Amino acid sequence: MIRHVVMFTWSDTADAERRARSVQALRRLPDDVGGMTALTVGEDAGLSDGNADAVLIVDFPDVEAYRRYAQDPVHQAMIAEHIRPFLAARSAVQFEV
Amino acid sequence: MIRHVVMFTWSDTADAERRARSVQALRRLPDDVGGMTALTVGEDAGLSDGNADAVLIVDFPDVEAYRRYAQDPVHQAMIAEHIRPFLAARSAVQFEV
Repeated sequence: MIRHVVMFTWSDTADAERRARSVQALRRLPDDVGGMTALTVGEDAGLSDGNADAVLIVDFPDVEAYRRYAQDPVHQAMIAEHIRPFLAARSAVQFEV
Repeated sequence: MIRHVVMFTWSDTADAERRARSVQALRRLPDDVGGMTALTVGEDAGLSDGNADAVLIVDFPDVEAYRRYAQDPVHQAMIAEHIRPFLAARSAVQFEV
């Protein structure tokens, strides 16, 4: 199983309403794209200074399922519309669980 | 439950042996510090360019358990010895699950 973890820091120009729409788009990924066995989106709880804003944790059965997701045109369109324009920083890791 | 996710990018000066020791120190946290209900350390599988190097995902029963861990002197000493000197970048999120 492959776990895909992405951390997002939104840009200052992205207001609360825009951030909420980006998070909703992430949460729609199982319906819009699929191929994962689990997906969690967490918004930072404000417990520590200097944190990122949100994290996406997605599990895939194998590397091929992850690659299909990563290259999926609907996924790519979602990133272009709801994520990339509003990002200040992003970091990601994929690892074998 | 609080999920604490931290993403690490090691500095270029940290060689493979040093990185392995840092990851081992993270994996010892349940024994050395405790208070968590689950802990996973994932090293990037090299599936995408520009990724971070490792991710720590830790679950705590509640906010107080997370705060005790964050302030624990053994945890702080581990960060000072095995993490902070070898970091190029770090990002974190804590969220309610």
